[in-house]
Amino acid sequence: MVDAVLFEFLHTEMVAELWAHDSDPDPGPGGQKTSLLVLEGMGFRVGQALGERLPREMLAFREELDVLKFLCKDLWGAVFQKQMDSLRTNHQGTYVLQDSSFPLLVRMGSGLQYLEEAPKFLAFTCGLLRGTLSTLGIKSLVTASVAALPACKFQVVIQRP
Amino acid sequence: MVDAVLFEFLHTEMVAELWAHDSDPDPGPGGQKTSLLVLEGMGFRVGQALGERLPREMLAFREELDVLKFLCKDLWGAVFQKQMDSLRTNHQGTYVLQDSSFPLLVRMGSGLQYLEEAPKFLAFTCGLLRGTLSTLGIKSLVTASVAALPACKFQVVIQRP
Repeated sequence: MVDAVLFEFLHTEMVAELWAHDSDPDPGPGGQKTSLLVLEGMGFRVGQALGERLPREMLAFREELDVLKFLCKDLWGAVFQKQMDSLRTNHQGTYVLQDSSFPLLVRMGSGLQYLEEAPKFLAFTCGLLRGTLSTLGIKSLVTASVAALPACKFQVVIQRP
Repeated sequence: MVDAVLFEFLHTEMVAELWAHDSDPDPGPGGQKTSLLVLEGMGFRVGQALGERLPREMLAFREELDVLKFLCKDLWGAVFQKQMDSLRTNHQGTYVLQDSSFPLLVRMGSGLQYLEEAPKFLAFTCGLLRGTLSTLGIKSLVTASVAALPACKFQVVIQRP
C-alpha cells in the first residue's frame, strides 16, 4: 500500500522539481517542452528496466495484441495496483488504452482549468509504456489525452520497420 | 517485487537528471551542492507524506527511541523491503542507524573510486528520514556516511526546542 503512494509521491516531486526550473527567470527557449521530454525520457528508461523484471511466462508473445494486454494487466498492476479499463485497436497497429481513473491525475482538481496542467502528469507514463514496449521488441509512439479528469487515454502507434 | 525496483529505478533517474544539469557548461555556483539540497528536499517532502500513511498503531509513541525503531522497521520495510541492521544511541539525542547493504548503493561498484559518488545516492534518504520524523513531531538533522560500500550509516541528531 505504501509502495503505491511512494511512487506517486516521488512522481509528484519529480514533476514539481522539473517545473520549478521552468519558472526560473530565464528558463531558456522551450522550457516546458523540454521538461515534458525529460519526463518522457525518464519514463522510457524506467519502462525499459521494468520490462526486464516483469513476470513473462509467455516470453515469446505470439501476437502484438498479447503484448498490449500484458501492459494493461501486468505493467499497470505493478505500477498502479490496478488494471487498465479498456483496450481498443484498429487492427492496423494503433491501440487506445483507457484508464477511467488514472492514479496520477486523481489528486488533481477536476475543473476545466486544470486540463492544461494534465500533460505534465502524463509524460512519464507515456515514456513508461514506450520503454516497456521497447524492451519487448516493439518500437512505438505513445501519446496521451484527457477529456474529463481523472480519465485519460494513451494512444500507442506501433512503428513498423 | 516490481514495486521495489520501481522506486530504485525512479531514484536512479532522478539522480541522473539532477546531475545532468550539473554538467551543463555553466551550472552556476555550487551546482553539485544545489542538487544534493534538491534531492534532500524531495526526500523530506516524500517522507512527510509517507509519515502520514504508515501504520501507526502506537500513534502516541511513548519515547523518542520508539519513533526511531519505527523508522528502522516500518519505514525501511515500506521503502526498501528490509529492516535497518542496527540502531545505536548515546541517549542524548543522537542516533546512528546502520544499513550493512543499503539498496541504493548496492548497484554501485565497490571500489574506493566510487566513494565520492555516494553522497548523491544518500541525500534523498536523509531527507526521507528527516521528513518522516518531522511528521511524527520530531525536528532533526540527518547526515549519512559511507566507509565501505554498500554499507552506510545515517546519523540522526534530534533538535531540541
